[in-house]
Amino acid sequence: MATRTTFDQALSELQQDILQMGIFVEDSIARAVESLAKQDLSLAQSVIDGDVQIDDQEMLIEDKCLKLIATQQPLAKDLRRIAAGLMIITDLERMGDLACDIAKIARRIADQPLIKPLIDIPRMAQLAQTMVKEALDAYVREDVELALKMAADDELVDSLHNQVFRELLVYMMENPKIINQATALLFASRHLERIADHATNIGERIVYLVTGERKELN
Amino acid sequence: MATRTTFDQALSELQQDILQMGIFVEDSIARAVESLAKQDLSLAQSVIDGDVQIDDQEMLIEDKCLKLIATQQPLAKDLRRIAAGLMIITDLERMGDLACDIAKIARRIADQPLIKPLIDIPRMAQLAQTMVKEALDAYVREDVELALKMAADDELVDSLHNQVFRELLVYMMENPKIINQATALLFASRHLERIADHATNIGERIVYLVTGERKELN
Repeated sequence: MATRTTFDQALSELQQDILQMGIFVEDSIARAVESLAKQDLSLAQSVIDGDVQIDDQEMLIEDKCLKLIATQQPLAKDLRRIAAGLMIITDLERMGDLACDIAKIARRIADQPLIKPLIDIPRMAQLAQTMVKEALDAYVREDVELALKMAADDELVDSLHNQVFRELLVYMMENPKIINQATALLFASRHLERIADHATNIGERIVYLVTGERKELN
Repeated sequence: MATRTTFDQALSELQQDILQMGIFVEDSIARAVESLAKQDLSLAQSVIDGDVQIDDQEMLIEDKCLKLIATQQPLAKDLRRIAAGLMIITDLERMGDLACDIAKIARRIADQPLIKPLIDIPRMAQLAQTMVKEALDAYVREDVELALKMAADDELVDSLHNQVFRELLVYMMENPKIINQATALLFASRHLERIADHATNIGERIVYLVTGERKELN
């Protein structure tokens, strides 16, 4: 068993790695939606190409977590901290996949003019990014209040998604020619809604880590 | 450190729990798609109501994994086995959520006659179910060959999804009145495609567990 200080240092390094991964994921979400709104093919491609880095980060952090468990044999609370880290990185990795899916949609519809300027979808993306940031802050600071805030943000993203959904359905009914693009945008909106769900998962995990209680936030 | 036999027994129990959870998830997928194809509201509701049980199973198994790590302090390979279990249950839980989403779609469109009898979507569901079953068999038996089979199955589900997608787009263009239902079916198909992705994740994890190599299967 290593000293407490060594362990704390390793744990703090782990958290820094997770924060770094989070920043990367946030950035992917932002760029994916920007590539969609601005019909920027090369930006979309950069998100798609960057996904492998998110996957690599996940694997690296997972290996570190396992090594930390194996070599330091942490007790209850510390073990939960590391387990929370393991779960958080799977959520982050899924968010990265979803950002990548949005970029693929951007690539697919880049050759046709947009039905209308995108407003709600970029708003959803901004909210989702804030959620990722705050969820990870809540993890590092073990801040239950901040973790619980995910519930309200998630509801906001959900209601924006429903609005986008209804609006796009109306567009499609009025003009069947734009169905292809409208369904593409519909999926992009849905992906953002899922990203917010993953951030909410992280919030739930932090509540469990700190309080020992399982609470559904969405 | 407990005896090897005690540990093996605990690990085998853990695997049984995971298999049980898998059977529950498989069943949810089957019932969700049946409720969609047969427009069976009460079947759809049973899937939605059952999701909380899947969530409970996940939490229970997660707690068991952590307790096992904390009390038995397993070394490298055993630790990896348990970590694989931890990751697999998050994939299973997500599949449960997606089955639940499909049931919600079934509930939403139950009051309108189906555009056409569903053929490809139930086929996708059947494939996805087989993938879940085989992925978990591969985990318990540490069977790399079976785990690698996920790649081919996943490709099949992807191509069915693309087929459904194209077909529904054509339907919508021909008759804008059915856009609402067609987009609902499109999402159901997409959810199945994601379920297959999660099964593929499990396959990747098993390859890593047994060979130590990270391999992308989709």
